Amino acid sequence: MPDQVLDDISHRRYNPLTGSWLLVSPHRTKRPWQGQQEAPSKNVLPEYDPKCYLCPGNQRAQGDSNPQYENTFTFVNDYSAVKEQQQEYNPEANKDDVASLLLQAQPVTGRCYVLTFSPKHHVTLADMTATEILPVIQTWTRIYASHLAPSHPLKAQAEKALASIPANPDGETEPPKNQLRYMQIFENKGAAMGCSNPHPHCQVWTTSTLPEEPGKELVQMTKYKSEHGRHLLADYVKLEAEKGERVVWQNDGFLIVCPWWAIWPFEVIIIAKRHVRALIDLTDEERLQFAEAVQEVTRRYDNLFETNFPYSSGIHQAPIDCTEEEAEASWFHMHFYPPLLRSATVRKFLVGYELMAEPQRDITPEQAAARLRSCGGELYRKAL
Amino acid sequence: MPDQVLDDISHRRYNPLTGSWLLVSPHRTKRPWQGQQEAPSKNVLPEYDPKCYLCPGNQRAQGDSNPQYENTFTFVNDYSAVKEQQQEYNPEANKDDVASLLLQAQPVTGRCYVLTFSPKHHVTLADMTATEILPVIQTWTRIYASHLAPSHPLKAQAEKALASIPANPDGETEPPKNQLRYMQIFENKGAAMGCSNPHPHCQVWTTSTLPEEPGKELVQMTKYKSEHGRHLLADYVKLEAEKGERVVWQNDGFLIVCPWWAIWPFEVIIIAKRHVRALIDLTDEERLQFAEAVQEVTRRYDNLFETNFPYSSGIHQAPIDCTEEEAEASWFHMHFYPPLLRSATVRKFLVGYELMAEPQRDITPEQAAARLRSCGGELYRKAL
Ligand SMILES: O=P(O)(O)O[C@H]1O[C@H](CO)[C@@H](O)[C@H](O)[C@H]1O
Ligand SMILES: O=P(O)(O)O[C@H]1O[C@H](CO)[C@@H](O)[C@H](O)[C@H]1O
Repeated sequence: MPDQVLDDISHRRYNPLTGSWLLVSPHRTKRPWQGQQEAPSKNVLPEYDPKCYLCPGNQRAQGDSNPQYENTFTFVNDYSAVKEQQQEYNPEANKDDVASLLLQAQPVTGRCYVLTFSPKHHVTLADMTATEILPVIQTWTRIYASHLAPSHPLKAQAEKALASIPANPDGETEPPKNQLRYMQIFENKGAAMGCSNPHPHCQVWTTSTLPEEPGKELVQMTKYKSEHGRHLLADYVKLEAEKGERVVWQNDGFLIVCPWWAIWPFEVIIIAKRHVRALIDLTDEERLQFAEAVQEVTRRYDNLFETNFPYSSGIHQAPIDCTEEEAEASWFHMHFYPPLLRSATVRKFLVGYELMAEPQRDITPEQAAARLRSCGGELYRKAL
Repeated sequence: MPDQVLDDISHRRYNPLTGSWLLVSPHRTKRPWQGQQEAPSKNVLPEYDPKCYLCPGNQRAQGDSNPQYENTFTFVNDYSAVKEQQQEYNPEANKDDVASLLLQAQPVTGRCYVLTFSPKHHVTLADMTATEILPVIQTWTRIYASHLAPSHPLKAQAEKALASIPANPDGETEPPKNQLRYMQIFENKGAAMGCSNPHPHCQVWTTSTLPEEPGKELVQMTKYKSEHGRHLLADYVKLEAEKGERVVWQNDGFLIVCPWWAIWPFEVIIIAKRHVRALIDLTDEERLQFAEAVQEVTRRYDNLFETNFPYSSGIHQAPIDCTEEEAEASWFHMHFYPPLLRSATVRKFLVGYELMAEPQRDITPEQAAARLRSCGGELYRKAL
C-alpha cells in the first residue's frame, strides 16, 4: 500500500461526490475525553407501547388512529416541514436591486411521510432479518414509483415495479396533485441523532425543489461522466473492490465501504454494483440483496460498541421529476452517518473547526473499515 | 414588509457567502418534543479547579506547567489536529489513473493553539465586561499579526498592530518556520458543542491549506465584487441596517444580525461596518467596539433561556498568506452557531434531512432577531 503514510500524518481527502475536502488527523484519538457522555442505550422497551404514536392501533397527535399494520405503515407527518398548500410567494427578481441579490428566497411545497419499519415498538433494523427488512424496501420502492412524474424517463420501470411488488394497504398514499421534484428517504436513529421516538421508523420528505446534497452529487456525477465517459460510482465501486482496504462487506448487488472521504468516524456507504438509477431499477433479487446490505451495516454498527448504535442514513437516487440526462447520471447509494467515535458513550462532535473551517476526522476510514469488517456475524445481543 | 408571507410558508433561502440554500419551515415549532434533553448547565464551578489543565499554575497532559497568567494564556495544543513536522507525502498525480481521481489526498501541516479568556475557571465571555474581553481580542490580533507571511499585502498593518498592542508574555509564541496559509480562531462553548473543559477558552488552528468554509466565502465575495463593483458584506451590512428586522444590536463599528440565511435557530453574525480585512485592520477604538459586540451576543444568548448558552463561534478574515486580491476581497466577520431551539434543554438537531438533503430551520431569522433584541441589558444572573 503506497498510501500507508496516511495512517500517520495529517492530510486532507477529497470527496468527488460533493467536490469538497475534509481534514484527517489519524493520531488524534489519543486525546483524553472529559466532555459530554451519551447515555448508553438500554434495550428495555416493551413490544407495544400504548403511548407511542407509531404503534399499531394507537392514536396520533391530530386524532387519527393507526391501523393494525403488519410490517410497514406510512402516513403524512403531523408536523411536516413542507406542505402541499400554502400562500403564494413571488419575489420580483430585479437584478439591480441589492435586496434581490442578498435576500433571495423561493417557496417550497411538498409532503412529508413517516414510515414505520415494524409494528414492534422495540426492534431496530439490526434486530430484523433481511426477509423482514424486505417489506421496508418494497414500500420505499412503491412510494418512490407512485410519486414519479408522468414524463419521467424511468416511468416504464416504475410501472414494472408497481406491478411486481404487492401493494401494502397500510404503506401507500396517493401522491400530491402538484408534481414534486425530489424524494429524500432518511432515518434518524437514536436520541443522539435527534430521534424522538424509538419505534423503528424513517421519514420521506418530498419537495418541489432539488435539495443541496443530491443536487451537488448530480452535478459532480454528470461532470465526471462527461469528462471520463464512465460513471463516477462505477469506477469507485470497482476501485474499492480491487483495493479491499475500505471494504466492509459485499454481495452480488452491493458494496459496503467506509468511503475514502468519510467524515463521520464509522461512516459507510452502500453502493449498487451495476447502474441502478433508483429503487425502481432493482430486481426482486436485488431488493433482497439490498436488505442484506442494510442488515449487515446496522448489525455491525451495534456489534462495534455493543450498543444500540445511533446514526442518520439516507438514500440518494434519481429525482422523481428529472431529465433523461439527470436520470442517467444518477447512481443508487445509501449513506450512513453515525456519531460514535470511541465507545457507546463517547461521540465525535462536528463543531467549531468543522463548522467554521472544514470537517475533521480522527481515525482513518481504513481503520474504521477494518474494525467493522471484524465485527460481523451474529448480533451481539439476542435479536428481538 | 413585502416578505411578511415568509413567516407562514415553507421556503428556501440563499446564502450568498457560501452559495448554498437552506429550507425554512416557520410553522414547525408547534411539534411536541419527546427526544433528548440537554442537561441545563448549572453554574457551580469553582473560581480555581486544581484538576483543570487550563487554570493558572496547573500541570498539563504532557507535563508542562501553566504560568500564573493574568488574562489570556496561549499554548500549543497537546493533542493538535495538525503538526509542524511529519513524514512527506507526495501522491503522483496521474490524470489517467482512476485512483488519482477518486482517492485524492494532500498533506496538511500546521499548528493548533489553545487560548484561555481568563484565569478564572468559572467565568464565560457573558460574565466579562468589554474591557475584560479586550485583552482576548488583543491577543487574537497579535497572534494573527505574528503569523502573517513576510510577503503579505497587509504586512504594514500587522507591524502597526504589533507596535500598538502591548505584548502579553503569556499570550504569544514564535510562529512555525514554514509559512502557513490560514488561521481559524474558534470557540466551542458548552458540553452540547463538544467542549470538554468549561474553563473559558478558544482554539486557533493554523494550517498549510485554506479550509473549505473560508475558501468558499472568498470565492463568493470575490465574484460579487467583480460582478457588482462593491463588497458583498458592505452591501449586506447597509441593507440590514436599513431594513432593521434582522438586526440584534449595533455600535459604530459593528452590526449584529441574525443573517437572512441563518441555519442554527439563534445564529448571529457580527460584521464590521467598514472594510476591515482582518483583525490587524482594527483601530484601538474598534477593538473595544468589537469586544462590546462579543459581549452583547454572549450576554443576550445567556439571557434568552436563562442558561449558560452553548455555541460554536469563529472568525473569518484574510488568510495569513494570500494575494493582494484575496486580502482585498476579505471582510472581517464572526459567526455564532448555537444549537438551542426552545429552551435550555431542547436543541435543534441538524441530522437526517439536514445531512442528507439540505439544512432546515424551524423559526425565521426575523423571529430569532426579535427575541434576541428583547433580551438585552443586564445578564440575567449575577456576572462572575
Ligand atoms: O479540541 P477539543 O476541544 O478537544 O475538541 C472539540 O473541538 C474540535 C474542533 O472543533 C472537534 O474536532 C472535537 O470533536 C470537539 O470535541
Ligand atoms: O422530524 P423529527 O424526527 O421530529 O425531527 C428530527 O429530524 C428532522 C429531520 O432531520 C430534524 O429537522 C429535527 O431537528 C430532528 O429532531
